[in-house]
Amino acid sequence: MKALREAANGRAIEVIDQTKLPFALEWLTLSTASEVAHAIKSMIVRGAPLIGVAAGYGLAMEAGAYELLKETRPTAVNLKWALDKVRAATDKWAAARAIAAGESEACRRIGELGRPLLEKAKRGETLRVLTHCNAGWLATGDWGTALAPIYAAKAAGTKVHVWVDETRPRNQGALTAWELADGGVPHRLIVDNAGGLLMLRGEVDVCIVGADRIARNGDVCNKVGTYLKALAAHDNGIPFYVAAPESTIDRSLASGSLIPIEERSGDEVRGWHGARLLPETTPVGNPAFDVTPAKLVTGIITEHGVLAPAEIAR
Amino acid sequence: MKALREAANGRAIEVIDQTKLPFALEWLTLSTASEVAHAIKSMIVRGAPLIGVAAGYGLAMEAGAYELLKETRPTAVNLKWALDKVRAATDKWAAARAIAAGESEACRRIGELGRPLLEKAKRGETLRVLTHCNAGWLATGDWGTALAPIYAAKAAGTKVHVWVDETRPRNQGALTAWELADGGVPHRLIVDNAGGLLMLRGEVDVCIVGADRIARNGDVCNKVGTYLKALAAHDNGIPFYVAAPESTIDRSLASGSLIPIEERSGDEVRGWHGARLLPETTPVGNPAFDVTPAKLVTGIITEHGVLAPAEIAR
Repeated sequence: MKALREAANGRAIEVIDQTKLPFALEWLTLSTASEVAHAIKSMIVRGAPLIGVAAGYGLAMEAGAYELLKETRPTAVNLKWALDKVRAATDKWAAARAIAAGESEACRRIGELGRPLLEKAKRGETLRVLTHCNAGWLATGDWGTALAPIYAAKAAGTKVHVWVDETRPRNQGALTAWELADGGVPHRLIVDNAGGLLMLRGEVDVCIVGADRIARNGDVCNKVGTYLKALAAHDNGIPFYVAAPESTIDRSLASGSLIPIEERSGDEVRGWHGARLLPETTPVGNPAFDVTPAKLVTGIITEHGVLAPAEIAR
Repeated sequence: MKALREAANGRAIEVIDQTKLPFALEWLTLSTASEVAHAIKSMIVRGAPLIGVAAGYGLAMEAGAYELLKETRPTAVNLKWALDKVRAATDKWAAARAIAAGESEACRRIGELGRPLLEKAKRGETLRVLTHCNAGWLATGDWGTALAPIYAAKAAGTKVHVWVDETRPRNQGALTAWELADGGVPHRLIVDNAGGLLMLRGEVDVCIVGADRIARNGDVCNKVGTYLKALAAHDNGIPFYVAAPESTIDRSLASGSLIPIEERSGDEVRGWHGARLLPETTPVGNPAFDVTPAKLVTGIITEHGVLAPAEIAR
């Protein structure tokens, strides 16, 4: 499954409008860099690998749009990585296409490498996985990062059940639930508060999440709330894996505390899909990511292999 | 401020309909035990101390309603505690009134005892507190448990700022934000995912929460998600206090794992205030409480003093 494809007639891309899911599946055509920039900023296109792919195509549409595209979202390093690749290329459209294909292949490989790790963690008849946010094919273009090993396990005949964190405030858990339903993977959505209890009760075998940026020391920046689940996994002796392509690793930063954390509008917390959850006058804080210290991460699954966080520096 | 009062003319009580807050402040009159039972079950009346008070009045309205009232919600032990007191009394209305007055006085005292603990944790000009759910006067009848020391600090002239967890799925953070705005206490609401990042960044001096039941070993059952915040506080060297009246302590249970955890309807997660957050077909899990192990609790503030979790058994 793909969340982004080239338009049949010419230099444009088509993307699923992820702000409409899970209630409607609508494709949008983006044919200018500023349309791509708007789609990234408003989370029509989201997920660290996919915003890299989209930004690459955006720069291929308009070679001068580097800064415009880079400014859309500050945290995921895949964006800058893809822009730098396309900027350096002679045939920019071919470079963008190569990034899309490369990330897709990386995710397929992450699925292969991650599957045995999940299966090793299985304690009963069913492999019980907890995931946060959406790191499936919607977020990457194809396969997914965190969901790729789950899809691979399911394809290999392993019985799987996924606990899906709601992931406030943008409720990307609804995207994950939609993806898993589409792929026939049994799952239940829970509020972000519930995962700790499930781990205490022994109802989770393993956690797996994606990443937006990984620092040289193995600290992992991912959707806000990830750190809390990693703490609970650690407290209960449950393995906690991070799945991400090489493009997510930023060896220029010594530690996670240096990663810029995007602060988004409080309106995301005050309302959802037209519903008012809070009065407009309620003061709100809305950081979109957090940092999970390397000490809480069991392994980082990339397309090149599974690394201990301390091995990222090499 | 009070969330429950006796009706002027006769054996009935009036309560704020907490399902309408923060958008509307409406009082309801409850004059039969089954009206009280419905109000507790549907969370019109909520908060461990307040459901004890309401149930006490319900039993005073109809002496045979013990089981009906006890079955409304399984986790908070205050409910059974209050019912037992009223059942044993000759003048049942007077007993219910005494419970209301006693819990109110307990909360006032918790405020007095808790204030210096919070103030001691202050690291800069402003005391920065994080709280989960609503443990203010809405949840207790008067003063609150977790919020009582905050109100006391503010009254004593201490500069305070409160981070308010949204507290999915019932969004009791909106009640806390409403209470704090009403009381002139600066605050910001955050999604439940955000507190870990704030603690990592050093933006929280101290955490304080209420409780629904405390076991003999000091394990604390409270609104789901509390455990995750306690883990983050522990990981960052931040004190984590629990504020609760004696009526919340259940010395008949050896540990928190024996506390019954209420599982509520998945519809609470799928929608909110008439808004649809998820399709009706999405499978949902919805445990309403979790258990914070005693090892993560700095102190338990009751009306009789501040106890280390290990001292609860005595």
